[in-house]
Amino acid sequence: MSRAKSVEVVVLGTGFGGLTFCQAFRHPEARITLVDRTNHHLFQPLLYQVATAGLSAPEIAAPARSVFAHRPDVTVLMADVEGIDLSRREVRLRDGVLSYDYLVMALGGVTSYFGHPEWEQFAPGLKTLDDAMRIRRDVLMAFEEAETTTDESRRSELLTLAVIGGGPTGVEMAGALAELARRVLAKDFRRMNPASTRVVLIEGSPRVLSHLPADLGDSAARQLRDLGVEVLTGRRVLEVRAGEVHLDDGTTIRAANILWAAGVAASPLTRQLGVPLDRAGRVVVEPDLSLPGHPRVFAIGDMALVLDAQARPVPGVCPAAMQMARHVARLVRDELEARHGVPVRRTPFRYWDKGSMATIGRSAAVAKMGALELSGLPAWFAWLFVHLLFLIGYRNKVAVLWQWAYSYLAYKRGARIILGREEG
Amino acid sequence: MSRAKSVEVVVLGTGFGGLTFCQAFRHPEARITLVDRTNHHLFQPLLYQVATAGLSAPEIAAPARSVFAHRPDVTVLMADVEGIDLSRREVRLRDGVLSYDYLVMALGGVTSYFGHPEWEQFAPGLKTLDDAMRIRRDVLMAFEEAETTTDESRRSELLTLAVIGGGPTGVEMAGALAELARRVLAKDFRRMNPASTRVVLIEGSPRVLSHLPADLGDSAARQLRDLGVEVLTGRRVLEVRAGEVHLDDGTTIRAANILWAAGVAASPLTRQLGVPLDRAGRVVVEPDLSLPGHPRVFAIGDMALVLDAQARPVPGVCPAAMQMARHVARLVRDELEARHGVPVRRTPFRYWDKGSMATIGRSAAVAKMGALELSGLPAWFAWLFVHLLFLIGYRNKVAVLWQWAYSYLAYKRGARIILGREEG
Repeated sequence: MSRAKSVEVVVLGTGFGGLTFCQAFRHPEARITLVDRTNHHLFQPLLYQVATAGLSAPEIAAPARSVFAHRPDVTVLMADVEGIDLSRREVRLRDGVLSYDYLVMALGGVTSYFGHPEWEQFAPGLKTLDDAMRIRRDVLMAFEEAETTTDESRRSELLTLAVIGGGPTGVEMAGALAELARRVLAKDFRRMNPASTRVVLIEGSPRVLSHLPADLGDSAARQLRDLGVEVLTGRRVLEVRAGEVHLDDGTTIRAANILWAAGVAASPLTRQLGVPLDRAGRVVVEPDLSLPGHPRVFAIGDMALVLDAQARPVPGVCPAAMQMARHVARLVRDELEARHGVPVRRTPFRYWDKGSMATIGRSAAVAKMGALELSGLPAWFAWLFVHLLFLIGYRNKVAVLWQWAYSYLAYKRGARIILGREEG
Repeated sequence: MSRAKSVEVVVLGTGFGGLTFCQAFRHPEARITLVDRTNHHLFQPLLYQVATAGLSAPEIAAPARSVFAHRPDVTVLMADVEGIDLSRREVRLRDGVLSYDYLVMALGGVTSYFGHPEWEQFAPGLKTLDDAMRIRRDVLMAFEEAETTTDESRRSELLTLAVIGGGPTGVEMAGALAELARRVLAKDFRRMNPASTRVVLIEGSPRVLSHLPADLGDSAARQLRDLGVEVLTGRRVLEVRAGEVHLDDGTTIRAANILWAAGVAASPLTRQLGVPLDRAGRVVVEPDLSLPGHPRVFAIGDMALVLDAQARPVPGVCPAAMQMARHVARLVRDELEARHGVPVRRTPFRYWDKGSMATIGRSAAVAKMGALELSGLPAWFAWLFVHLLFLIGYRNKVAVLWQWAYSYLAYKRGARIILGREEG
């Protein structure tokens, strides 16, 4: 790298990792190119609210271009990454090639069906805004069809929702769907009673939210049951077909909508890299988050396997991705600063666990922050507070807050519009 | 009709006509069934804002069910109307049949291609929320592709938008697209300049907004040109192909996005009725808005041809549809009241023209109210005032107002999220 030439930094992904890196990193000699297959950053923790008609899609998304409109050093490209050539230091797009001096990979994860990709068509996952819009449409359409149909057994299928996976996404989805059916839609139908909707949450391990202490998992299950959710734990899914889930205890659940919240894997692009991966396809990175043998290539967020001080994997949550992004930003800046002097020693990444929480419904949640464990209303306020804090900086925050407060307090959902029937 | 049996009123369409009828009509002996193929009422005058990324879809739509949640006498069905049998007094749905004592048809209009239905695939119209979402996605994608492509001639196609039809919808679309390109997106791209976007408005007659006085049409054209729109009047479209519009003066416009705002026809269901229609398929109704020979069947709004006091057709605008709805509501109520007494004489419908307006951009508009003609900023304030008044009663009005004010004053667009790429 000569002094005159600018340093090319390519960032893949506009999730929490990629976006935070671009916000935290700036250097007069560096040019950043940020690439993503969508045109927006997504506030993923509220995606389930779009799927359950509480918020509209633009309310939890910010166009990446407008985030960096005032940063002439950042070029945003909406493009599919087709391949990464580590030896030539190139990222291949469908329409062109990007050369890099530094590469930050933050492509996140995809829904994983544990070796059953054929289940996807019957049980969509929830990773993108398009996923959320499709789930919203299918769920709202099921209620509409339940009102028009004259076939009782079809109606009971339409009014059954099965959620597979009792992690935070599954718990939040099941809670929001139960509230939608029992509270929001309560007065809207004449020929059937939406309160008769069955929401079934299926989890293979003995309790939901298994990443939290046992008493919080039990509390979450109790709060879900209070909302009318059937919580089935210790039951494994053997088979998913159109409108049917088969469990290992011989039960079959017939449900017009089956939602998959059971598994996440790293972006499949990691498989092309030729570096060590874990079972979920995550890159096993060095302590400084670089790839083994490629000190100027980093993997951060859900696509990286990083161990914390207790040698446990850092969880795939937004704060972890943001902390990794800031670590890499500092490291690259220090190296550019020191380029013509003494080389810097890279420090290892340290994860600071801020806690973990999941919301279940209006005034129902669980939260763990350090030694503090909360349940019910206090946990819900903690959840609200943290999410409000995070949303600050989002363009539409006032509209979102309004919608959100309205939707929670009045049991109304502002985004109950069915879209995309013509195309679907 | 015996006294014990309730009177079945079937209303087709949740547009301004159908919705207003249900709001204005109520009778202890009547049961209303409201049928529409969508699940929402749409604030059509702002639909162009969704197509141009100013507002999100749920912000201008209200679920019909929640509008009538507190009216147990109103049943809402989301269903496609497959046919109407006037002799048997039945509406045929895909899943069942509705019998009626009174029928109010308010199905509105569809985009008409003047005998060239094959143009639709190349030049989508703007009648539904799905239309608006598709246009938004395609327009935003064109800017994204223009940033990534290395082919200059492809880029100039991507940065050309052709709008066919210089009525209110075409004028509003062209103005909003020009603002989007020149103001909203101005700082967001690095490899191309969005201000180089061509927006071409094509109108067959000698001036745009031909329903308004000539000086207002001229003013609208001037305001459009100030925004950078090329206004081509007196030019007819001979042919539309993929990415190409051929005009009768020999010109060909190559544009990645071609939008059709040139024609509206009544819902095709009118053709099955066996009653007299005009050229646009509208039902030629009696002075009381009933169908000839069917005094208990009414057609209102865009699907009815009604003459005003000067024997001119009442225009297909929201206030006309709402006035017709209230007329029919009063009439049916009076008849039910008088059922066991003296029959009432039906009064003819009288249209009260409140004026007409079109907005062109921020602080650009034209308006005519009675003898008063306004242009530019005063017209824009009049437009804003009228639309604010109308929006009152909409669920999301605070969010909409916020978005709207923000989008206008800051030249930002809150709904610039590209959705549905996976499905489209």
